[in-house]
Amino acid sequence: MFEQLGLIGCGLMGGSFALAMKRAGLVKRVVGYSKSPSTTERARQMGVIDVEAPSALLAISGADIVLVAVPVAATEATFKSIKHLLHHDVLLMDVGSTKEEVVQAAQRSLRQFANCFVPAHPIAGKEKAGVEHADANLYHNRQVILTPTAVTSPALLQKAQALWHALGSKVIQMTPEQHDATFAAVSHLPHLLAFAAMNAISNQNQGADFLSMAGPGFRDFTRIAASDPSVWRDIFLSNRTELLAQSQAFQHALQALETAITSGDGQALAKLLEQASTTRTHWTLSSKHLN
Amino acid sequence: MFEQLGLIGCGLMGGSFALAMKRAGLVKRVVGYSKSPSTTERARQMGVIDVEAPSALLAISGADIVLVAVPVAATEATFKSIKHLLHHDVLLMDVGSTKEEVVQAAQRSLRQFANCFVPAHPIAGKEKAGVEHADANLYHNRQVILTPTAVTSPALLQKAQALWHALGSKVIQMTPEQHDATFAAVSHLPHLLAFAAMNAISNQNQGADFLSMAGPGFRDFTRIAASDPSVWRDIFLSNRTELLAQSQAFQHALQALETAITSGDGQALAKLLEQASTTRTHWTLSSKHLN
Repeated sequence: MFEQLGLIGCGLMGGSFALAMKRAGLVKRVVGYSKSPSTTERARQMGVIDVEAPSALLAISGADIVLVAVPVAATEATFKSIKHLLHHDVLLMDVGSTKEEVVQAAQRSLRQFANCFVPAHPIAGKEKAGVEHADANLYHNRQVILTPTAVTSPALLQKAQALWHALGSKVIQMTPEQHDATFAAVSHLPHLLAFAAMNAISNQNQGADFLSMAGPGFRDFTRIAASDPSVWRDIFLSNRTELLAQSQAFQHALQALETAITSGDGQALAKLLEQASTTRTHWTLSSKHLN
Repeated sequence: MFEQLGLIGCGLMGGSFALAMKRAGLVKRVVGYSKSPSTTERARQMGVIDVEAPSALLAISGADIVLVAVPVAATEATFKSIKHLLHHDVLLMDVGSTKEEVVQAAQRSLRQFANCFVPAHPIAGKEKAGVEHADANLYHNRQVILTPTAVTSPALLQKAQALWHALGSKVIQMTPEQHDATFAAVSHLPHLLAFAAMNAISNQNQGADFLSMAGPGFRDFTRIAASDPSVWRDIFLSNRTELLAQSQAFQHALQALETAITSGDGQALAKLLEQASTTRTHWTLSSKHLN
């Protein structure tokens, strides 16, 4: 399907994509570049990439598909450094967890080649980052959200859909705005709250004593607070408008509960708790997710 | 060890206690009372209790151990209704999730018999309430927190410790104040936040669309929001002072994160996220809990 993949960022996400593409027979050659030369070398030694490129620009020379798998905050600089070797028929994708900012960055920096860009967010990952954890199965049975814009080439969008299907992913299409609003609500806000809850405890003198008594409910509630700080710094800053709006909505809901508690209004409190409990009881993990 | 258990409240917690006591050979006879006569009858049919009592007072007639396993909010009324048949050598316990309020209720209503009361909080439960789910293993390998006060009889406290040990529980002792502060931080606040997070989403027009995209992180974060509304109404109201103090501490921690996000201060944000991630990564579920 493709001759040459230009891979910029040979970490967990990018490396797994290269391995999956190779295993599926979807690409003949992978040319890779990572900011750290030792990562690029490691990727070649592991067979994740075939050729090491000395720069992002040279990594895409001759490529008919390019994957930018760098932190969201580094996406625009990457676009700028590769735009001189783009062609209108190159499929360019990212793997970022927020989409409005990268779409704007693409329009600013890619200009006439913004049509190449099919913004992608694969809902996949591992607790451990780095090319050494790259896995050809990472995207299998996972959701991949594509957020094309008005300028996105329909032909390249179709190619992107076919490619992810061929890797065993479930493809969903949304606007960048829908994507960022949705994930602010169901992913970014829960992470923000879990981080805040951990800090609220550890800021207290008795924090360690409290934590020694915490049980299974606490364990599950705070699991996502162990996530990678630099990844989440980028996501929170990149999606700040939607995230802060969701945080406001949350604080209103918390305020309503606190008001009922402060005034001792058991009836109002029970009603609010029933709303939450009923919503959560009826919710089930979509079959789009496997775990 | 005991001749007769007077059980007030023959639900999941009380019924499981009766079954565990019987199986361990720690009691000869169980006389039970529940507010709903059909529950009391069911408990007798199931062999959870041996004799149905027509009132709480008659349930404790002749008992040398009494367990009050009613909602926290009903504890004081129960104490009032039984105090006329208490003796100084009767071991009286509850199973409530908050302790300061029941200790005060005991001092107000039991008066000279307040020495009998050994406040207990077994950290155990099931998603399904009711005597039909009573289980002789419910307290096995679980923590039971005893919160004696200055007036608690040392002899009865020792009996209570021996009893829970004999049921396979791990006994921990705290003051009522320590107990309520600890559980406000590690249990009541997480529940409050999870309830608020569910309501914040379902209050929005796009709530259902958002929820359809939620994944495993959201599932774990909100699991406790499916908890029983009436149980949590009582806990929140009973422990409101400590809970609201923890909620304030949480809101300060959230505010610090929001300030870093709003000002785009990536360094400050990363530092706060690292604090949370490091704390959570180093925390492990104590061996006092089994799941």
